Parts: sequence; C-alpha cells; structure tokens
Amino acid sequence: MTNPKAIVLLSGGLDSSTCLAIAQSKNYEVYALSFSYGQKHSSELEAAKRIADTAGVTLHKIIDLDLGSFGGSALTDDEIDVPTGGTDGIPVTYVPARNTVFLSIALAWAEVLEAEFIFAGVNAVDYSGYPDCRPEYIEAFQQMADLATKAGIEGHGVKIVTPLINLTKSKIIQLGVSLDVDYSQTVSCYQADEEGRACGKCDSCVIRKEAFEKAVDQDPTRYR
Amino acid sequence: MTNPKAIVLLSGGLDSSTCLAIAQSKNYEVYALSFSYGQKHSSELEAAKRIADTAGVTLHKIIDLDLGSFGGSALTDDEIDVPTGGTDGIPVTYVPARNTVFLSIALAWAEVLEAEFIFAGVNAVDYSGYPDCRPEYIEAFQQMADLATKAGIEGHGVKIVTPLINLTKSKIIQLGVSLDVDYSQTVSCYQADEEGRACGKCDSCVIRKEAFEKAVDQDPTRYR
Repeated sequence: MTNPKAIVLLSGGLDSSTCLAIAQSKNYEVYALSFSYGQKHSSELEAAKRIADTAGVTLHKIIDLDLGSFGGSALTDDEIDVPTGGTDGIPVTYVPARNTVFLSIALAWAEVLEAEFIFAGVNAVDYSGYPDCRPEYIEAFQQMADLATKAGIEGHGVKIVTPLINLTKSKIIQLGVSLDVDYSQTVSCYQADEEGRACGKCDSCVIRKEAFEKAVDQDPTRYR
Repeated sequence: MTNPKAIVLLSGGLDSSTCLAIAQSKNYEVYALSFSYGQKHSSELEAAKRIADTAGVTLHKIIDLDLGSFGGSALTDDEIDVPTGGTDGIPVTYVPARNTVFLSIALAWAEVLEAEFIFAGVNAVDYSGYPDCRPEYIEAFQQMADLATKAGIEGHGVKIVTPLINLTKSKIIQLGVSLDVDYSQTVSCYQADEEGRACGKCDSCVIRKEAFEKAVDQDPTRYR
C-alpha cells in the first residue's frame, strides 16, 4: 500500500516549516508548494527551497503568480512601508485573499495528484489579525472545496489540515523542536535582507522573538 | 457618486462575454480579468482581448498562472486528447479547481479595487458537468469569501454574481443578442485554431451550435 499524499503550503516561515515536519511525521508522501507572488524579498522563497530540500520532499513546486500587480499590501507594494509598531484591526501587511488563492491552487494540484491532504500553517492565536487565518474561514473553505472538485463529488474530498490553528507560537516552536525542525533556516521577517536575515522590528519578528524566548529560552533567528 | 466597480471573469467564450455585457448594462465600472493558465490554444485569450477592447472596459488584466504544469486536463495536458463524443460523469476537459482558482484571484483584485461585484459566467444547465458550475458551489464560495476578506469582515463583502447560472444556452444567447454582443468574436471551442476558428465537433462546439440554431436560427461561429 502506498502512503497517502499530502501537499504542504510552504512559505519558508516558521509555521509552514513546522507543518511540513508534521506531515512527514505521519509518513505521508509530501509535496511542497510555494509561491513567487510578488513578495518584496526573495529570501523567504530561498528558505522554502532549502527547507524542502533538507526535508527530502517528493516534489517542491514554486508557482509564479503576480499578486503584486494588484498592489494593496505592504508585502507586495513598494509604495506601502512595512510597519514596525502594532496596529489595530487588519494591518497593511495583509495580502488580499492570499490564503484563499494559495489554498485554491493547492486544491487544483491535489486533484491531479490525488492527494488526500493539504497542510496549511495558519494560526489564529499569535498572529497578525488576518481574516483568512481563522477556523471559521478554514471550515468555509473546506465546504466550498468539497463542492468544487471531482474528488469532493466522488466522496473522497481533499481535507484541509491546519494543525497549528489553535496553538500559541511558543507551542508551535516546542512541537517543531520535538520534530527536529531547524528554525535557523526559516524566515519570518516581513523585510528580511537577501541573505534571509531578519529586521527584528516588524510585527512578525516581534511575535517570533517573544515566542522563542518563551518556548526554548533562545532565539535561533539570524538578525542583520 | 461613482458607479460601483465590477470585475468580470472573461475567458473569451460565449458565456463570459454575455456577462460582460450584463455588467455594462448596469452601468458598473467594469474590470475584466483573464488568465493565461496553460490552455492549449491562445485564440481564446485573443478573443478576450478583442471583446474587452470593443466593450471599452476600464482595465483588462491577464494573469499568468501555469495550471498546465499540474496536468490532468485535456484542456492543458498535451497527452490527453479533447474528446469529440459525449461522456458520462465529469469529462477530461475539466480543469481541476479552475473556477475556484479564478474566483479566488478575482477576489484578491476585488479587495484592492474595492469592487462590489465579481461576475462569473458559470452555467449549470447546458454545460459540461463540471462540479464548479453548480449553484451550491457558488453559494459555498460566497460564504467562504465573506469570511476570507477584509471587505467581508467589515460587512461590505464582495458579491459573486452569476446571472447565467440557471439559463439555457439559447436563453443566454437571446439575452446577449438583446445587449448587442457580437458572438462572432467569441471562442468556445476546446481546440480552436490560431485564428479562433472552431472544430465544430467537441462537446463545447456541439452545445453552442445547437443553442444558436434554437435561439436565433443562425450560427455566427467561425468554423475551420
């Protein structure tokens, strides 16, 4: 019997890298999916490549999709700065409908691969307030996916798996450390430099730094 | 007061071209969105460009997205032939999760544009049996979209509009003719040649030909 196939959405960040380790710990045949979507820095993608390579996934696909041409986010639009202080509500680092787009493309690939699972490292605890990270959103996506696909119609739909959704960042780190994730390879910073070194100041860096100190009393992040 | 903005998914086929005319008849500010997704023939996209140009839309964006690299459909995979007879169940011309991917990307653009509507020419009557053309699918997508987006959270979500979903193909044609759609510009054939001329034999051609004869007693389609 062959192992079930799983697609892991891999950004190169802390959460998705932990997800990859979880999928592998279940002996799934793992396919990693990343996107070159117009993000300002490419070091995140370079990190994704290294992580997928180290993990020995069956295939790592990087899809080009210019969400940046729509603008509207500090992560893709040169005219919007990445904020370094906290904000109320949904921050400018929100990329419109990003998770929906990424999950949809993963769903397309899952149908062709006949994959049973799509792993997404979304997290609704220590996060930036994005609407598409919440459990109710994931449930709605699952319902839509079951109706959208041939697999869904035939009764063996693709399951969206979000193992981190209710964990704190420090719990995620503890889980990843137990699975031997090398977090020094991961890039979470919204404005990392070309070598993947973090700014230490943006929203994402602040959340990450605090979590490492709490979880394992040391921060493996490479700062510039 | 400015007119509400609407994005129209424009493939260059009969249904989406009719949708475009409907959106314009409501005096919306129309943005057309097409995809170069690895379809075997480019004449469909050329048709979309001509139609958007003739209609005078505010902006026509063509997004590159290589769904063809996943394979699995006769419309994108060179190793799968387009069938010319009828088939039971979901045919090989089904492109996995295509409407979900296209609607998701339209949703991303709608958020940035602050568009109120996304028009999609899906149709569940005279169609090829694709799961992502059914009303229950569109409803599920809407629910997901309302939870996915900043617009949804703030209460003024983007509305997915499918004016053709319950119309027969001949009714769609009659509606389009009343709105002055030039159907000779549209390409529906699954294997049109470089000049957009139809094969007359594939599933899509057969449905279209019958509908024109019924609706207006003549077929403006250009055959090779």
